[in-house]
Amino acid sequence: MSKLCTGVFAPITTTFDDDGALNLNALKENVKKYAASPIHGYLALGSNGENKALTWEEKIETARVIIENKAPEQIVMAGSIFESTVETIAFAKEMEKLGADYITLLSPCYFKSMMKDEVLIRYFTDVASAVDTPCMLYNAPQFCGGITLSLKVIQECAKHPNIVGIKDSSTGNVEKIALSVPADFQVLSGSANTFLSCLLTGGIGGVISLANSVPEVVCRLYDYFVRGELGKAAALNREVIKANMGVSGKYGVAGVKYAMDRSGYFGGAPRLPLFPIPEEGKQAVDACLDSVDFSL
Amino acid sequence: MSKLCTGVFAPITTTFDDDGALNLNALKENVKKYAASPIHGYLALGSNGENKALTWEEKIETARVIIENKAPEQIVMAGSIFESTVETIAFAKEMEKLGADYITLLSPCYFKSMMKDEVLIRYFTDVASAVDTPCMLYNAPQFCGGITLSLKVIQECAKHPNIVGIKDSSTGNVEKIALSVPADFQVLSGSANTFLSCLLTGGIGGVISLANSVPEVVCRLYDYFVRGELGKAAALNREVIKANMGVSGKYGVAGVKYAMDRSGYFGGAPRLPLFPIPEEGKQAVDACLDSVDFSL
Amino acid sequence: MSKLCTGVFAPITTTFDDDGALNLNALKENVKKYAASPIHGYLALGSNGENKALTWEEKIETARVIIENKAPEQIVMAGSIFESTVETIAFAKEMEKLGADYITLLSPCYFKSMMKDEVLIRYFTDVASAVDTPCMLYNAPQFCGGITLSLKVIQECAKHPNIVGIKDSSTGNVEKIALSVPADFQVLSGSANTFLSCLLTGGIGGVISLANSVPEVVCRLYDYFVRGELGKAAALNREVIKANMGVSGKYGVAGVKYAMDRSGYFGGAPRLPLFPIPEEGKQAVDACLDSVDFSL
Amino acid sequence: MSKLCTGVFAPITTTFDDDGALNLNALKENVKKYAASPIHGYLALGSNGENKALTWEEKIETARVIIENKAPEQIVMAGSIFESTVETIAFAKEMEKLGADYITLLSPCYFKSMMKDEVLIRYFTDVASAVDTPCMLYNAPQFCGGITLSLKVIQECAKHPNIVGIKDSSTGNVEKIALSVPADFQVLSGSANTFLSCLLTGGIGGVISLANSVPEVVCRLYDYFVRGELGKAAALNREVIKANMGVSGKYGVAGVKYAMDRSGYFGGAPRLPLFPIPEEGKQAVDACLDSVDFSL
Repeated sequence: MSKLCTGVFAPITTTFDDDGALNLNALKENVKKYAASPIHGYLALGSNGENKALTWEEKIETARVIIENKAPEQIVMAGSIFESTVETIAFAKEMEKLGADYITLLSPCYFKSMMKDEVLIRYFTDVASAVDTPCMLYNAPQFCGGITLSLKVIQECAKHPNIVGIKDSSTGNVEKIALSVPADFQVLSGSANTFLSCLLTGGIGGVISLANSVPEVVCRLYDYFVRGELGKAAALNREVIKANMGVSGKYGVAGVKYAMDRSGYFGGAPRLPLFPIPEEGKQAVDACLDSVDFSL
Repeated sequence: MSKLCTGVFAPITTTFDDDGALNLNALKENVKKYAASPIHGYLALGSNGENKALTWEEKIETARVIIENKAPEQIVMAGSIFESTVETIAFAKEMEKLGADYITLLSPCYFKSMMKDEVLIRYFTDVASAVDTPCMLYNAPQFCGGITLSLKVIQECAKHPNIVGIKDSSTGNVEKIALSVPADFQVLSGSANTFLSCLLTGGIGGVISLANSVPEVVCRLYDYFVRGELGKAAALNREVIKANMGVSGKYGVAGVKYAMDRSGYFGGAPRLPLFPIPEEGKQAVDACLDSVDFSL
Repeated sequence: MSKLCTGVFAPITTTFDDDGALNLNALKENVKKYAASPIHGYLALGSNGENKALTWEEKIETARVIIENKAPEQIVMAGSIFESTVETIAFAKEMEKLGADYITLLSPCYFKSMMKDEVLIRYFTDVASAVDTPCMLYNAPQFCGGITLSLKVIQECAKHPNIVGIKDSSTGNVEKIALSVPADFQVLSGSANTFLSCLLTGGIGGVISLANSVPEVVCRLYDYFVRGELGKAAALNREVIKANMGVSGKYGVAGVKYAMDRSGYFGGAPRLPLFPIPEEGKQAVDACLDSVDFSL
Repeated sequence: MSKLCTGVFAPITTTFDDDGALNLNALKENVKKYAASPIHGYLALGSNGENKALTWEEKIETARVIIENKAPEQIVMAGSIFESTVETIAFAKEMEKLGADYITLLSPCYFKSMMKDEVLIRYFTDVASAVDTPCMLYNAPQFCGGITLSLKVIQECAKHPNIVGIKDSSTGNVEKIALSVPADFQVLSGSANTFLSCLLTGGIGGVISLANSVPEVVCRLYDYFVRGELGKAAALNREVIKANMGVSGKYGVAGVKYAMDRSGYFGGAPRLPLFPIPEEGKQAVDACLDSVDFSL
């Protein structure tokens, strides 16, 4: 594995026209801007990417646009998120062909009561064994029926040579995970709320939805940490969490996209059944983002 | 709408070879046997059908085999279960082309925290408005992140001319639903555990996983009810619930398929990540089914 | 054990003045009326009895009034619901001294994550071994942090000579329990929603909150069942569930008490923090109870 | 209010003999040692204090021993945790008489479905209005049926002149709370896992179960933070979280007590139904605590 998955990643949104049609030109423009920004990479086809709202072909085209337009040194993690092992592997191979640096894997959950530790370990290792691209676990109980990866699952998967890290978007776990895995297992936070805490306990980066709208702010926070300026990091972190609460916390993908619109990116609306942000939501996001101090 | 969705339905399993390949010949043989059985119809591409483990094309081929080989009077409900409105509609139209009698719709759940009542109502009615085939809601919190359809959602959807019923696979709700909807809104139980109770409170049928292995038993139970022989119905119902607890309750799809193998159907294994039933599971299912009295 | 715990039980409410003071005279008057009604007994100090809102002394006085004023043949189950084994035993002995026929035991739950099966089995059997009065389990996850008694816990407890039954107020379990325990283990439903279904699968009675306001209706339903008039039972059952949804389902103890006020009993308000039923709640309960047909 | 609730607090355990009898002498000896330690105060009758396992009288005697034997400058928060408003107030007044500095209030939860925001706000403000001692909210969904205090409840309660802070023992909330309340509303972490993160986002202290066994370590961590030595704080914090995971995280109160035994305090066993720590648990705690580096 050549590139370490460290720094700030944008869980890049997928761009749609108002009628719900995929707009790859808008995506391309967004990526070009991110390519000139300080972010270290992207999570393509993640939750903010509305992975589950895309057809197989749309997913591939979306990943292709991101990979072809990013800056050369930027890293791309690509989600392969399906309910069956066979389909997860097949899609992971598509991402491998496109040149993704990492494959991100979420727990299947349709048959939640059957997803015992040994089933999940088998699933993740089956996929990781079938591809050459290194795999990252994705712990996000809010998106998979409440399934939280146990430390046992994570530690067992960490023994697999091709499972090299985890992105944790749950609450209250990232510190425990970072303190329970081998030193070379890469732990990333999946939320601004836990980003600094993750770094302070051994994590090496974060996939932060605010990086979609204010990439330079999240990167500055990361740089403060790297340089050991922890007082500055803590001060900016407070503003970043407040912003995150008001944007992603309240309005989800629709809020993230509206914040992008505010920052000169193409945000637009999510695909149905997700509703676009309502007028009062825009005002609330405006009020929130106008009140935080990103200059710290 | 010509045919009423009444009686006993098999949530038909999808047949795979041991290497996970779709085996449509085996499915065809199963359907031919069911066509000669007393069941009133099928739920194709439901949970026991491992809907989420199939590719788009596999789903279509599976539904086609069922529709082409069923008995003429048998009804086919087909699941169109996706996370985006656009994909749900597109697949529902495929099912409509094939001649499905009903489309079954499950709540999206990836962004669970966003699935407020008004979002779900919009989702179900958007889909129902886009097709001519009548639609059935599918209430199954165990398969969609814990989302239980509220009575408000059900009652609002019941006002849509093309949403004509509900299959309820939750616990503790089917009686309340049956007693809260208009008389012509068709309520079906989705579990042997609640089948008789559903019928006694106004429901008109059931989608019962045991009908995959012992269709004549479940149909006899239904017939007792229809003829008002409630004492006989209650006696047989006890055996049916005991069987269901030991088969589907403990081992899920793998148990349902093993019970099919026992009855001369092609059961086989589910697709990974679901594990096949272990040896001790087979023995437990054997012991359970040998102990119940289906002759009542 | 002399008396079988069969038939219809009122989970009798505890009576308070408007300022929250315990009103034992009102309770006495209520019990005298119930003594002249067809109900087979009482659950004293249960959930509708606001057990947790009473001091130790108030609990004893409440149970005393019920036991001293009931009809001689009526049975009294008394809740001994505490978090520590020692306190549960001490209170159970107080109930024994007063002459309670059964002690009802709910799972402790403060340290929910510690309440493994073996801990619960130890708890229930420790209490049952410490008293002579027969004990009933009380399965009510909605009142104890979501802890549902597993079939293993129930079956192990059923082996104890002094644990003789269970009152199940959960959803979707009473039929499974009734079909999984020895024939002499007494299974009672704890909700009108599952009462008839419980009886049809092997249960012998119910603790039904509507019996607080319309005891004769619930007893008639039970009598239909006992006489094998299942069609009549099913018809009345539909009305009973509809009434229960509108009264207890929507407004809890406050609704149960308002329905008592309507029927000539002393209902009054629950103790804070529970709010009294609001005006629109009274109107909704009125509308519900005026619409059901209890004459069936 | 004279004393600010800042620094490190021990959620002091309650001491029992092996037969479960309250051992106040052992408690007195523990408190005398804590009085000579650097901790800033105590939470008496909290979760680690097994509040719910004590009778009314035992609670009072326990609080009395703590208050009478602490160092003069140490602060005592005392839990008044009951299901009814009237009992919570009555006990809070007992604590006030004894001289507690703060009263700690947990959400009632028996009737969880009724505990809407307005009910909880009424509950907390009713209690706070009835006493002169300042009150702290206690947010601990794991101990009250999953009820998490909403930001709305916290913000409304913060307007009450006698509700002055919150102890948050949930996961993923303390940072959001600290960033959402007025500057003079005192936010304390209730877990080592979130202690440093809480301080970095505006909190002023923590109630940390490890302070029962290694008070000087937790206080050193706090001092690093206060002096702005954030690198040192982060390094020690990693060891503290690892220790907490192995002690409290795995074995709860029994683990906390065993760690106390190891450190020369009287730990002993919790009261039934809680089991004492098993032999392999002792070994696991030993291994954990032997592996962490508290010298940082």
